[in-house]
Amino acid sequence: MVGKKRRFPNAEDGLVGKIQDASTSSGAQSPSLSLGMGDDAALFVPRPGHETILTCDWFLEGTHFLRDTHPADTVGWKCLARAISDVAAMGGEPRCFLLSLTLPQTHTGPWLDNFLRGLRRAAQRFKCPLAGGDTTRRDRILINVTVVGEVRHGRAVLRSGARPGDLVFVSGRLGEAELGLRLLRKTERTPAKDPAVRKHLYPEPRIALGRWLADRRIATSMMDISDGLSTDLPRLCAASRVGARVFAAKLPTASSALMHRAEAASKDRPMERAATAETLRERNAPLAELLELALNGGDDYELLFTVRPQKTDSLPRAFQGIPLTNIGEITHQRRLKFVRPSGREEPLKPRGWDPFAR
Amino acid sequence: MVGKKRRFPNAEDGLVGKIQDASTSSGAQSPSLSLGMGDDAALFVPRPGHETILTCDWFLEGTHFLRDTHPADTVGWKCLARAISDVAAMGGEPRCFLLSLTLPQTHTGPWLDNFLRGLRRAAQRFKCPLAGGDTTRRDRILINVTVVGEVRHGRAVLRSGARPGDLVFVSGRLGEAELGLRLLRKTERTPAKDPAVRKHLYPEPRIALGRWLADRRIATSMMDISDGLSTDLPRLCAASRVGARVFAAKLPTASSALMHRAEAASKDRPMERAATAETLRERNAPLAELLELALNGGDDYELLFTVRPQKTDSLPRAFQGIPLTNIGEITHQRRLKFVRPSGREEPLKPRGWDPFAR
Repeated sequence: MVGKKRRFPNAEDGLVGKIQDASTSSGAQSPSLSLGMGDDAALFVPRPGHETILTCDWFLEGTHFLRDTHPADTVGWKCLARAISDVAAMGGEPRCFLLSLTLPQTHTGPWLDNFLRGLRRAAQRFKCPLAGGDTTRRDRILINVTVVGEVRHGRAVLRSGARPGDLVFVSGRLGEAELGLRLLRKTERTPAKDPAVRKHLYPEPRIALGRWLADRRIATSMMDISDGLSTDLPRLCAASRVGARVFAAKLPTASSALMHRAEAASKDRPMERAATAETLRERNAPLAELLELALNGGDDYELLFTVRPQKTDSLPRAFQGIPLTNIGEITHQRRLKFVRPSGREEPLKPRGWDPFAR
Repeated sequence: MVGKKRRFPNAEDGLVGKIQDASTSSGAQSPSLSLGMGDDAALFVPRPGHETILTCDWFLEGTHFLRDTHPADTVGWKCLARAISDVAAMGGEPRCFLLSLTLPQTHTGPWLDNFLRGLRRAAQRFKCPLAGGDTTRRDRILINVTVVGEVRHGRAVLRSGARPGDLVFVSGRLGEAELGLRLLRKTERTPAKDPAVRKHLYPEPRIALGRWLADRRIATSMMDISDGLSTDLPRLCAASRVGARVFAAKLPTASSALMHRAEAASKDRPMERAATAETLRERNAPLAELLELALNGGDDYELLFTVRPQKTDSLPRAFQGIPLTNIGEITHQRRLKFVRPSGREEPLKPRGWDPFAR
């Protein structure tokens, strides 16, 4: 209500119409939505026997993405995918989302079209249609996404359920997205086919894995790794009032091939399979850098979860192609320990993403 | 993930803790919330036989409030109250909210404390506890609030239900909040006791009225007036595929006493009772300005609703002290008309708040 001017017809309504069109043409309709965009609010019909999961996430130009580095469609995809990751981390499934968007007047044309295309692809992929939102003008691109999900009553996996003796697992490989960001910042053209760059630009929330772990009551605690293992594991341990010991030799790092690729900023070398830190050490790979990435790199959106020792037999080595790796154990002593490949134990310090430490 | 630095312990977690403390000390607990702040997401237990209402709202420094003009506690109150107004406008009741907040490092002390105090007061008043959110650092204060509400299945009042012949009603008086903003910008000290200023700083969403109109099936369509009647009424008409005729002489404007007060930027004159435009005209008040405020002033958060003629007998003149005023009628012809006190009919142009027209 500050500093308003007048125009006719209402420009905000035109923009909302554009977003609405993109939404309804997505085909990502949800039987849960009884009223979508265009009213004061959306209406959602809860599924009987389920709890509703609520989460929201900032995605801000200059903080979480760069206007000139990140193509508009990747901004659309990622703002939704990373918010959905929080739903996956509870063992739930996404149902719909709200989009709050501010744009400069210059970005209401092609940029917005590409943004909406990426957003629509993610909405279809993750079966999570747009239900509503709010738009306003601003000199910066600011995004906030609220995702509504559902989980069977009593089956949500919290951060607080880890107990001493539980084994600590992660899905996928850690540090790849950070490696992708480094590569992206080194090159002029977006090397969109590079696996590390793709992981940075188009993260895939682990919805099916999270749900499987929750439904079968395999995970005692769970969260997603968004800020980096060294920052997120202490959060899980604090919620559970426990400590943990993580083994460097067990960490599923990015492959050394990816690493060399990032260093050379080359896009044409053949890809090697990702490897554990142990095998990389044998190959004399830059272990220190790979470990640093795996511990502190953010944006991986992999799942971090704990399992009772007697339940680990129920856990496959990979779920739908995603490796599941035991990286350590939960301890009674409330400290975070990191065991170097040499066997030396040292404190695990939170060195992941922290917006207030900049 | 752009441009990160490291610090120990995690500063973001400290901030989240502060917000969490303010939240849990509010006493505004909800039986609907099975899991509040501190995990990946919140868990909400839906009430059987109800639909879930979802809405989100930007509240941005420089766009919706000014850092130096608006005290921190009013920012806290208003960011929640205005988002709740969308739930009231559906005939629902708020259940919980998510807060997304960015702050400069300089505002994580007293400013944040005062902001949280205002937020907590609103959360208690409207029985809408904090369920979760997201915080990050930024040079500007950016706020996004998602409110989750509930309404009995099938009872939500939409914008799309108005039919030709229905009478158009508004609650309260229109233009007072805009008048309050003008006064606020003219004075150095915040004249917090002035009724118009209070309406601008501490809006009261019409939850009980909205619910009453929905439960008794009195309103055929409804929305809240946030951007100004001349901008919001066309939205209701577009959703209902109808037109409307509004009578200047019927508009419940701010009182001329409030108006003079704003002009003189004086805080000590005795208050007069608010009056309709008609009585003001008799007193030779600045009718043109009062009408302009009532038509185009934003931030009132009053309810705009339509009622079948045969149902208007069920409608009192005031609900819990809030006047309910018939200001016009719904027409078959899809045009918006404004009837001047002289009887002259002219088009009603949307001249309320439009962020993209600045």
